[in-house]
Amino acid sequence: MTAPYPQLDPPTRTLLGPGPSDVAPSILTAMARPTLGHLDPRFLEVMDQIRAMQREVLGTRNEATMPMSGTGSAGMETCFVNLVEPGDEVLVGVHGVFGTRMAEVAARCGAKVTTVEQEWGRRIPSEAFAEAARGKRFKLLAVVHAETSTGVLHDLEGLREVADACGALLLVDAVTSVAGMPVRVDDWGVDALYSGTQKCLSCPPGLSPVTFSPRAMDGVAKRGSKAQSWYLDLSLIGQYWGSERAYHHTAPINMLYGLHEALRLVLDEGLEARVERHRRNATALWAGLEALGLEPLVPLAERLTPLTAVRVPEGVDEAALRRQLLEQFGVEIGGGLGPLKGRVVRIGLMGAGSTRRNVTLCLSALETALRTQGVRPRDDALAAADAAYAG
Amino acid sequence: MTAPYPQLDPPTRTLLGPGPSDVAPSILTAMARPTLGHLDPRFLEVMDQIRAMQREVLGTRNEATMPMSGTGSAGMETCFVNLVEPGDEVLVGVHGVFGTRMAEVAARCGAKVTTVEQEWGRRIPSEAFAEAARGKRFKLLAVVHAETSTGVLHDLEGLREVADACGALLLVDAVTSVAGMPVRVDDWGVDALYSGTQKCLSCPPGLSPVTFSPRAMDGVAKRGSKAQSWYLDLSLIGQYWGSERAYHHTAPINMLYGLHEALRLVLDEGLEARVERHRRNATALWAGLEALGLEPLVPLAERLTPLTAVRVPEGVDEAALRRQLLEQFGVEIGGGLGPLKGRVVRIGLMGAGSTRRNVTLCLSALETALRTQGVRPRDDALAAADAAYAG
Repeated sequence: MTAPYPQLDPPTRTLLGPGPSDVAPSILTAMARPTLGHLDPRFLEVMDQIRAMQREVLGTRNEATMPMSGTGSAGMETCFVNLVEPGDEVLVGVHGVFGTRMAEVAARCGAKVTTVEQEWGRRIPSEAFAEAARGKRFKLLAVVHAETSTGVLHDLEGLREVADACGALLLVDAVTSVAGMPVRVDDWGVDALYSGTQKCLSCPPGLSPVTFSPRAMDGVAKRGSKAQSWYLDLSLIGQYWGSERAYHHTAPINMLYGLHEALRLVLDEGLEARVERHRRNATALWAGLEALGLEPLVPLAERLTPLTAVRVPEGVDEAALRRQLLEQFGVEIGGGLGPLKGRVVRIGLMGAGSTRRNVTLCLSALETALRTQGVRPRDDALAAADAAYAG
Repeated sequence: MTAPYPQLDPPTRTLLGPGPSDVAPSILTAMARPTLGHLDPRFLEVMDQIRAMQREVLGTRNEATMPMSGTGSAGMETCFVNLVEPGDEVLVGVHGVFGTRMAEVAARCGAKVTTVEQEWGRRIPSEAFAEAARGKRFKLLAVVHAETSTGVLHDLEGLREVADACGALLLVDAVTSVAGMPVRVDDWGVDALYSGTQKCLSCPPGLSPVTFSPRAMDGVAKRGSKAQSWYLDLSLIGQYWGSERAYHHTAPINMLYGLHEALRLVLDEGLEARVERHRRNATALWAGLEALGLEPLVPLAERLTPLTAVRVPEGVDEAALRRQLLEQFGVEIGGGLGPLKGRVVRIGLMGAGSTRRNVTLCLSALETALRTQGVRPRDDALAAADAAYAG
């Protein structure tokens, strides 16, 4: 006997956490368009448009540019299983959950992992990488451009030189920066980069846009062993996304419709305008947070604009705070991960969610929730945000 | 400078190939519902409902039942990376593309692979497995229940005994059978099974429902080495789908909405009624094909109902045939794979696509396309199909 299962009835939230972010309405509409076969000539056109748009958004001419059929973590794994062989030396910057995860994934590929550690919430200086690499050879230098667990932006200036000095490919996690902050793969000499759809692209989670330089793909072609993952093997997947159109796995058609529309919206707005929008709204948020007496975890010069980690004041129950935001206002913000659990909340203003409306809503809801816990604002948060917009 | 990229405008097809199949309209609507956070209490309810419904559809009480965040091939890889350790002996039945793929994936996990080979288009007798296993020990016995490349149904009767005799877990690929033919995980003593959303579940591709017996999960817990894939590591993913709700990767929310609605539709129709609908429409299709002078690849007793491979008559250009169906009628059918390329076409009547309307449309379109190539029908195909429905 079958239990009666209810039809879906998800409430409408305002997603201001670390992702998924609010999805642009036209992306949801795109995902509901009729499914095509994965070898239908009309779908092959969609694929080609996705690749072309993805190249523009990532600032690259790399032929090997496509979305992987999994979330951002699948994109991370794609990079390691294809670029690393057992016994390879890998240098990984670790200053949050995602650097930690990169080191873990590299180790599962049989790599010998050296980490460059940094306090969570601070950037790793390029000199620290240079020092760790001095006199050594590495297959891969891996760094998180936008550490979603802390809100730190990692400046990539100087890392190409470090990678060159130790013979390494440069691998970058740009899950939270793509389409919200400048990402210029070719200008920066990045060899491999992965992102996710559910952050500043404002698409539901489920795909990971990746790109690989000709040098990286040359390494893939010359591997002595097969990639340990068949599902993520670039030498096979490239034959589907490339001109051969050889069947590998059945592409997630409707998710790809969503990504197509997401990329189109980014290019329609313009990359520079979009980056500036993220900057402007983040600046206003920060002004308002300061007025509320809340302190960002990350110093201004090292801070992401799409995502801000905020220290939880002494005596405030952050789980109760987040719950009140969700239940009273339908506003989702994120908690801390790992050593930051209970100590920070994370506020995302990403993609379609990076709006003045959401800055105002978030500050007002936070002010109310703090007052519930007996914390009064230091200053007028809305006035501070308004002044930031005016200034 | 940005090229002008067009908005999506996918035509409406009738998908009668090997998948993706036609998607039920309410599933597309579900996928366009507002995205929730992956830890939102309301989304956790959706997850619990998906797991409960998936258990009913697979005929299991396995706790470890959930969808993986990738297509069916990711489900296949999930089974091998979790159940196999380097050096393990694995026995794989190979009688088509997907058995071949299982052997390949197992080898990439470091398994020592023994195959039981069979002509493509015929079932592997259980005795062949018994013979290959005689006097040996295996970690895993892997078989394709519904071989999508040929349309062969593999009877699982007797395989549990073979697996027991050689100490193996029984792993089953049920990508094309789930929700279209009987699949009873617990009754058949299956230890691990993966499927896909884009066949008889009538959902777009992108997720792989999987289930693991307590014995299989016990083996996962007792592994001597970590699974080589972090993304597909059941010991971590289980903590998100289980009561801990620990963040692993960001779940593909809107794809999961689609699966929720797909499972709900299956249970609303009833498993037996759904299986019978697939049987009835396939029987009518077969009668019509015979009248057209077309011969199925697979003998009746070994044939899948959701998918039929049909031999291409001498002198017929099968690529031109398929192209005409697509261009004139908007009907997609599939070509052959591997050694069957150019020799068969594959016709799917899956999920929402298994209808009398589609049987009629497919036969009529085929008759026209064959006539274009100078092939006249042996008999009246529509009358033959109608008689099958009446009979």
